[in-house]
Amino acid sequence: MAMPHTLTTEILIQMLRAGDERALNAALEDIHPHDIAQAAADLDDESLWTLLQRIRPPLNAEVFSHLSIDRQVQLAESRAPQDAADLLESMPSDDRVDLVQQLDEESREDILGAMEEPQRRDVQRLSLYRQGTVGSVMSSDVATLQADLSVTAALARLREMAAQKETIYYNYVVDADGRLLGIVSLRALILADPAARLRDLMNEEVVALHVDDPVEDAARLIREYDLLALPVITAEGRLAGIVTVDDVLDVAEDEATEDFHKFGATGLGRISLNEATVGLLYRRRIVWLMVLVFVNIFSGAGIAAFEQTIQSVVALVFFLPLLIDSGGNAGSQAATLMVRALATGEVVLKDWARMLGKEFGVALALGATMAAGVSLISAFRAPEVVVVVAPAMVLIVLAGSLIGMLLPFVLTRLRMDPATASGPLITSLADISGVMIYLGLATWLLRGQISAAGGL
Amino acid sequence: MAMPHTLTTEILIQMLRAGDERALNAALEDIHPHDIAQAAADLDDESLWTLLQRIRPPLNAEVFSHLSIDRQVQLAESRAPQDAADLLESMPSDDRVDLVQQLDEESREDILGAMEEPQRRDVQRLSLYRQGTVGSVMSSDVATLQADLSVTAALARLREMAAQKETIYYNYVVDADGRLLGIVSLRALILADPAARLRDLMNEEVVALHVDDPVEDAARLIREYDLLALPVITAEGRLAGIVTVDDVLDVAEDEATEDFHKFGATGLGRISLNEATVGLLYRRRIVWLMVLVFVNIFSGAGIAAFEQTIQSVVALVFFLPLLIDSGGNAGSQAATLMVRALATGEVVLKDWARMLGKEFGVALALGATMAAGVSLISAFRAPEVVVVVAPAMVLIVLAGSLIGMLLPFVLTRLRMDPATASGPLITSLADISGVMIYLGLATWLLRGQISAAGGL
Repeated sequence: MAMPHTLTTEILIQMLRAGDERALNAALEDIHPHDIAQAAADLDDESLWTLLQRIRPPLNAEVFSHLSIDRQVQLAESRAPQDAADLLESMPSDDRVDLVQQLDEESREDILGAMEEPQRRDVQRLSLYRQGTVGSVMSSDVATLQADLSVTAALARLREMAAQKETIYYNYVVDADGRLLGIVSLRALILADPAARLRDLMNEEVVALHVDDPVEDAARLIREYDLLALPVITAEGRLAGIVTVDDVLDVAEDEATEDFHKFGATGLGRISLNEATVGLLYRRRIVWLMVLVFVNIFSGAGIAAFEQTIQSVVALVFFLPLLIDSGGNAGSQAATLMVRALATGEVVLKDWARMLGKEFGVALALGATMAAGVSLISAFRAPEVVVVVAPAMVLIVLAGSLIGMLLPFVLTRLRMDPATASGPLITSLADISGVMIYLGLATWLLRGQISAAGGL
Repeated sequence: MAMPHTLTTEILIQMLRAGDERALNAALEDIHPHDIAQAAADLDDESLWTLLQRIRPPLNAEVFSHLSIDRQVQLAESRAPQDAADLLESMPSDDRVDLVQQLDEESREDILGAMEEPQRRDVQRLSLYRQGTVGSVMSSDVATLQADLSVTAALARLREMAAQKETIYYNYVVDADGRLLGIVSLRALILADPAARLRDLMNEEVVALHVDDPVEDAARLIREYDLLALPVITAEGRLAGIVTVDDVLDVAEDEATEDFHKFGATGLGRISLNEATVGLLYRRRIVWLMVLVFVNIFSGAGIAAFEQTIQSVVALVFFLPLLIDSGGNAGSQAATLMVRALATGEVVLKDWARMLGKEFGVALALGATMAAGVSLISAFRAPEVVVVVAPAMVLIVLAGSLIGMLLPFVLTRLRMDPATASGPLITSLADISGVMIYLGLATWLLRGQISAAGGL
């Protein structure tokens, strides 16, 4: 890719040493805040703060927003509350509330106390929305216009507001009480007769979200309608904010990480690997591992119940890992497909019966093919157990696949995340059913040999 | 969420029966093409085609673009090539090339032959880019402006172009040869002095992609820079098209599905569950399952090598599934964390040593805790094997974790997708190492008992 800028930490240090604020701001004018933040991240706290003081607002707040959240917290907590508050006042409202929520309690109170009334109230209002709702990720920096404005007057208003608003491409038309009436894009304003009123120009068929809607809905609507932003309204129909497409991209990535982590039974949720210390990784991972140890006791108990059979025909043990793993593998495949399809909304709860029929057919064919494979191995290695191993494979793959396919639906029905049906959990459940099927079938089919050896 | 429109299939049928084209277009004017397509999808082919003929272009082509790709193919292949070509000419260029690539060869040639020259060449050019590159998802409907234009002239040009372009919010400034010089947003044009020249107004620090860059780069840049679109340039620096954020959202979702499917060893790649028939599911899933059957033969061979040990101390078998599963589970966790972190770019190849150190510490703590748990069970059930089971657990969890952690890095080094280190593959590899560690340790630690029973 082509990125022509060449801003480095060294250049920033030189600029700071030179001490010429005007030259600094001129040099940074056309550079994206993300790139400035990248180069600034390697500065020590003192130099970084000096830089942020010298860059003109609101660019300094945008650069600050592009630093890692940990660095933001560290800087904000180490400064005089009034200095931190001045910077936070110019931040994008969604990034600002994320930061305030991460501050320690004392700093939070001090900094909020030092902020101007409107910005403080904005933070407090946005903090009220539960995690995972549209309200918790929306920005309140939304451009609103009154319905009676003419196109010329509306464009003049937008010119005044442009600097502080997240986007001026989608503009929302509201009544005197702030209720959402319609939407008018900048594109439509550019194309319209300058004398027309917004009331006659606006599109009233607005796709909007409620503050309490799950944030996944925003991603889905933005994708389906090819939008850049969605308005968010309160229960009374008042415009509360907007969700923009870059918020949704972040949420989509976090969602995918969460599903992936859950399906791998890591216990980490949305926490990324770099954020997690050894201690945290241990505490989160041990929970599922110990649960699975106790689930696996049932496999052991199953084997103990068939001790006599194993002692009579030890060759059965050779195939134990292969058979129970095969059930677990087919089950993991089925669970993977269902968990992902439920997550993307491609499959919904009521599809379970249709999916069961499909999986039954696939699993039967898989089991038959694998039985043929394992018969071949068995014929060379331990021909005395072919008669058990082949039918056991068919039944074990069928059982594993159906467990893997059904568990995500059962969890969805119980209002749990289907990804809780993790690969390791499915594997352990398939193992229990595999041990029972295999050794039960062996005991029955080989009863002649077993009683000859002194059992039963 | 709030969606005020109430368009249904029945209303569309009534409108078609009434036969008033003007009333139809007036009624649909403010409704999003996605919603029209949703309501129209339930019409039979004949009515749907009549509807598309009566809606004014380019809205009819936008509605057509929002139908499922299968329906688009079905309709296009069943119509006279000239009729299909007329509709395709007004489609967004990225959707159009996707459709043309899905047509059967005869229809493709006929329809391309019936299309106007510029649109035909556009399809042919876009078809050349390899899947997974930025070129294969970009749109060529990009608004370009010459550097010498004044703001007033540029706005006039944009008004003319607005209907056919994907976005007029980001506009690209090019020289006479089509080389990208800079970017000027509609926001900047609205705020600027009307007499200013674009050359002096444009931002030359453009973040751009090359046509051959991987599409994942587009997602990452759009997220990092909070952009709505990215320009795409050829090797010669000519502007070839743009990638918009809604293209990237689709790609991000497909990527996540692919990784998920790969990690579950389903063999499905980007194919979604609903698209896959029973036959396809069977063919894709059996490949990995059979590979794993043959990998698991090594577990069986390991067990066979220790037949004497098992026959002497049958209680060892009770703990076999529990121990080998524990290694697989810890390994799956480690692989999940690495695969996801490598996919999001949070961890890169050169971090492997740091990750190894971290994983070693975590795995040792996990193994010790699980050894304590399994000792407790063993003390009640089979006290004679505690001395083997506890140290075996520590070593097995350590081995499984390190396999799960390292394999994604090894695959990345070999230029393969790290997600190929699937849960089932890690489980099977951890099983082999688990069998060897457990039974090897048992043979050594219990050598007194085993020789007393007549072995060794």
